[in-house]
Amino acid sequence: MNAPTALSHLVPEIRQREVPQALIDALKARFADQCSTAMAVREQHGRDESSFEAPPPAAVVFAQSTQDVADAVALASAHSVPVIPFGVGSSLEGHLLAVQGGISIDVARMNKVLSINADDLTVTVQPGVTRKQLNEEIKSTGLFFPIDPGADASIGGMAATRASGTNAVRYGTMRENVLALEVVTASGEVIRTGTRAKKSSAGYDLTRLMVGSEGTLGVITEITVRIYPLPEAISAAICSFPSIEAAVRTTIQVIQLGVPIARVELIDVNTVRMVNAHSKLGLREEPMLLMEFHGSPAGVKEQAETVQELASEHGGKAFEWASTPEERTRLWTARHNAYFAAIQSRPGCKAISTDTCVPISRLADCLLDSVAEADASGIPYFLVGHVGDGNFHFGYLLDPNDPKEREVAEKLNHDLVARALRLEGTCTGEHGVGLHKMGFLVDEAGVGAVDMMRTIKRALDPKNIMNPGKIFAL
Amino acid sequence: MNAPTALSHLVPEIRQREVPQALIDALKARFADQCSTAMAVREQHGRDESSFEAPPPAAVVFAQSTQDVADAVALASAHSVPVIPFGVGSSLEGHLLAVQGGISIDVARMNKVLSINADDLTVTVQPGVTRKQLNEEIKSTGLFFPIDPGADASIGGMAATRASGTNAVRYGTMRENVLALEVVTASGEVIRTGTRAKKSSAGYDLTRLMVGSEGTLGVITEITVRIYPLPEAISAAICSFPSIEAAVRTTIQVIQLGVPIARVELIDVNTVRMVNAHSKLGLREEPMLLMEFHGSPAGVKEQAETVQELASEHGGKAFEWASTPEERTRLWTARHNAYFAAIQSRPGCKAISTDTCVPISRLADCLLDSVAEADASGIPYFLVGHVGDGNFHFGYLLDPNDPKEREVAEKLNHDLVARALRLEGTCTGEHGVGLHKMGFLVDEAGVGAVDMMRTIKRALDPKNIMNPGKIFAL
Repeated sequence: MNAPTALSHLVPEIRQREVPQALIDALKARFADQCSTAMAVREQHGRDESSFEAPPPAAVVFAQSTQDVADAVALASAHSVPVIPFGVGSSLEGHLLAVQGGISIDVARMNKVLSINADDLTVTVQPGVTRKQLNEEIKSTGLFFPIDPGADASIGGMAATRASGTNAVRYGTMRENVLALEVVTASGEVIRTGTRAKKSSAGYDLTRLMVGSEGTLGVITEITVRIYPLPEAISAAICSFPSIEAAVRTTIQVIQLGVPIARVELIDVNTVRMVNAHSKLGLREEPMLLMEFHGSPAGVKEQAETVQELASEHGGKAFEWASTPEERTRLWTARHNAYFAAIQSRPGCKAISTDTCVPISRLADCLLDSVAEADASGIPYFLVGHVGDGNFHFGYLLDPNDPKEREVAEKLNHDLVARALRLEGTCTGEHGVGLHKMGFLVDEAGVGAVDMMRTIKRALDPKNIMNPGKIFAL
Repeated sequence: MNAPTALSHLVPEIRQREVPQALIDALKARFADQCSTAMAVREQHGRDESSFEAPPPAAVVFAQSTQDVADAVALASAHSVPVIPFGVGSSLEGHLLAVQGGISIDVARMNKVLSINADDLTVTVQPGVTRKQLNEEIKSTGLFFPIDPGADASIGGMAATRASGTNAVRYGTMRENVLALEVVTASGEVIRTGTRAKKSSAGYDLTRLMVGSEGTLGVITEITVRIYPLPEAISAAICSFPSIEAAVRTTIQVIQLGVPIARVELIDVNTVRMVNAHSKLGLREEPMLLMEFHGSPAGVKEQAETVQELASEHGGKAFEWASTPEERTRLWTARHNAYFAAIQSRPGCKAISTDTCVPISRLADCLLDSVAEADASGIPYFLVGHVGDGNFHFGYLLDPNDPKEREVAEKLNHDLVARALRLEGTCTGEHGVGLHKMGFLVDEAGVGAVDMMRTIKRALDPKNIMNPGKIFAL
C-alpha cells in the first residue's frame, strides 16, 4: 500500500479488496490485448486531476462496445471485484481512484458519435466522445453542444459527474441536457433510460438518477444530449471593475433582471496578473467579468446595452468588445488559460480547487468573505467563477512538499464550504463528491437523505462493486 | 368491492389490504377532527379526473403540517397500511385511487407560501398551494411561476406527476423547475433534497427521483421552485392554417430555428368548432396555432416576425394579435375552455385523454396518422397540443354507458402510444403512468429499467405502503 497522503484523514480508509487471479485470467481470455496489467497503464488509470493517491487498479479493460463493458462488469461481479469507469481522467475529486481495489474500464475507445438528429436538436454518442470532438463532428449542422467544463472531458464522464461550466447560466448543466442513457448495471445487464422526447412523465427519472452518480450505480455506455442552433449573433466582452464586489454585484443584477446572458465569468485581479504574465494579454490588472451574449443581432445588442448600463453603475469600465470568432478567442484566452497560468506562476505547485455554489443573492457574501480569508492566509491562489450561476472556484497553489500549506488550504476550503451551506448553497456546484466531499455531503443533505442514497446504492449494487468508496462511505 | 369497470382489464387487479380498526382508532386519537371516515369524504378522495373506479380509502387525514404527514405515515407504516397523498384531485391516470386500500393524506390545508426569495428567483411552498394561488401571492414581486398544466393543480401534485403544460416549451417542466424538496419517507422520517443553489453535483439527484414518482416513494411536504421575471413584453397571436399538417410543420420549423417561443398550442378544427359553440368566439373554423412571445419589446417583435414568415410559407393566415392582458385572455379562452367546450358538445359524455410526446421531427408523422385513425373511428374527439414540445392530447368523448365506445377509444389510444414509441417518443408527456400506463411503461422503458424502478421502490418502501399499485405492479 502507498504511504498515506497528507490528506488521508479527509478521505476514507483505503481498504483494498482482493482481485483474484481467476478474474484477471478470465479478463485476459475474454479481452486479449484489450486488457492490460502493465503497471504504467494501471497507474495512469489510478489517478485523476485531484491530489489524492491510492494503489492503482489491478487491470485495465479497454472497452470498445457496450457488450465489452457488460462482459467486464459481469466478470467482475462474479468475483465481487470493484469496477471503475474511466473516460479521460479529468475529474477533480478522486473519482477514479481504486480505493477498494478492482479493475478500471476505460471507455475512451468508445468514441463514436452514433447519430445526429439535427431536426430534433439531439445527438447520441458513446461515452468516450469528448466535448470538443462532439462539437467538431456536428459543426457542419449549424448546431453545438454548449456544456463546457473547461477540460476536454468525455461526455460519459460529464454525465457521471453532472458537469456544467461556463455556458450553464444560459443552457443548463448535464442535468438539464441529458435526455436518455444506456447503462450497464451492477449485474452486467444493459438498460435504457429516457427517450428522445423532450419531456416525459413515464416513471422514475432513472436518467437523472444516473447523471451525477459518479459511476456508483452503473457504467454509462451511451448518452443522448440536447444540442442547440448556433446563435445568429455572438458577442463577447471584457469589463474591468474597481473591486471584486462591484463585479459580483453587477452579475447579481444581470441575473435578477432575467438577461439571458450566455456566459458571465469572474476573474479576480490575482488571476488577471497570472494570465497577463502567461499569455502576454496586456489586460488591465483589475477584477474583471468576461461575458458572452447569444441571440439575434438585435437581441445581442439589447442584452449588451443592458449589461453595460448595469456595469457602469457599479464603476465597470473599459468594455472591450469582440464579435468575430478570432477576437472572441483572444478574450477567452484569459479564462481558458487561467489554470495553467496559475500553475506556472508558482513552479512546482499543485492546485486544490474549491467548488461551492450559492443562490445568486448570497454570492457577494459568500465570495467576499472567502477572498478575505484567502488573502489573510498567505497562500497564493487564483479565483474564477461561473458567477451567473453563483458558482466559483478558488485554486490554492500549494507546495506539495509542505504539509502545512495543505492543511491551511483544506481549512480555507472547509470554511468556504461551511459558509456556502449556511447561505443555502451546495458543497459542489459541478465537480462532484468523489472522495473529498463525503463529509460535506452529509452536512449539506443531512443523514436521512444520505442514508436514502446509500439505500438506493445497496439495492442496485448489492455487492458494492460499482466505483465503491465514492460519494458516501459504504 | 365495486363491479369491475369496462377498463378493468387494463388496470391491475384491485387487491384491498385490510385497514385494521386499531389504525383508525390511532388516527382518530392523534388527529381528532382532522381525520374523517365519512363516506362522502372518503369517496371524494378515492377518485381523480380519470374514469377509473375503486373502493374509497378507509379514512382521510387532513394534514396541516409536515409533522402531521410524518405522524400519519408512521402510524400507517406501523400497520403496513397504504397511504395516498391527495392535493386537489386533478390527476388524470388514476393516481389517487385506493386500489390496495389504505388511507388518504389530504395536503390541501398545507397551503402556505413559506418564503419568496425574489432576489434568487425562488419560492418555497407547502404542497397544497395551487399554481394560481402561487402566482397571485407573488404578483407584487414582478415574478411568476410559468408551469401551467391547465387545471389549477397543487404544486405538490404537479411535482409528484412531473407536470408541465403550455409554457414548458420555453420554461421547462417540473423536472427543470423544482430545486429542492422536503419529503416524508415510507418510515415517516422527514428528509430534504437539494438546496436553493441553481446547480449542484452533490450526490444522487433525489429531487428528480421524487419528482414524477407519483407518491410511490414519499409524500412531498415542501417544494422550492424557480420563478421568473415577468417578461417586459408579452404578445399573443392566433394563426389559422389550411390543414393540421401545415400548422404542425410551422411549429417544427419554429422550434428547429431556436425561436424562444413561450407557448405554441395546436387546436384542431373540431375543437375550434366546439369552443366557438361554447364561448361564442367567432374564430375561423380551421386548425389553428395559439402562440405567445415573451421578451423585450424588440425581441418579441423579432420572434413574432420570424414566426409569421414561417407560418405564411405554410399557408398560415389571419394572424390575430393581442398585446394587452385583456386581448390575450380573450385569445387564450379558446385554449382554456377547450376541455369544457368539448365535454358540453356531447352531453353526458366522459373524456379519455391521451398524452404522447415525440421528438419534434416526428410530430407530423405521429399526429397526422392518429388524426386519420380517430376520424375513421367515428368517436367524437377534441385535439389540443403543446406542440412545441412534441406533446399532444386527444380527448375521446365517450358515452360512459357504451362499453363498445370505450373499447374503440382504448384501441385508438393503444395505437397512438405504440406509434409514439416507434417514433422514439414517450407514452406520457405530462400526465404520468398512474394505473393506466403500466403496460406502456414496460413497452417504453423495457423490463430492465422497470425492474430497476421496482428495486428502488422496494428498497425505499419495503412494506409497499406508498401509493402502491401505481407506475408498476408490485
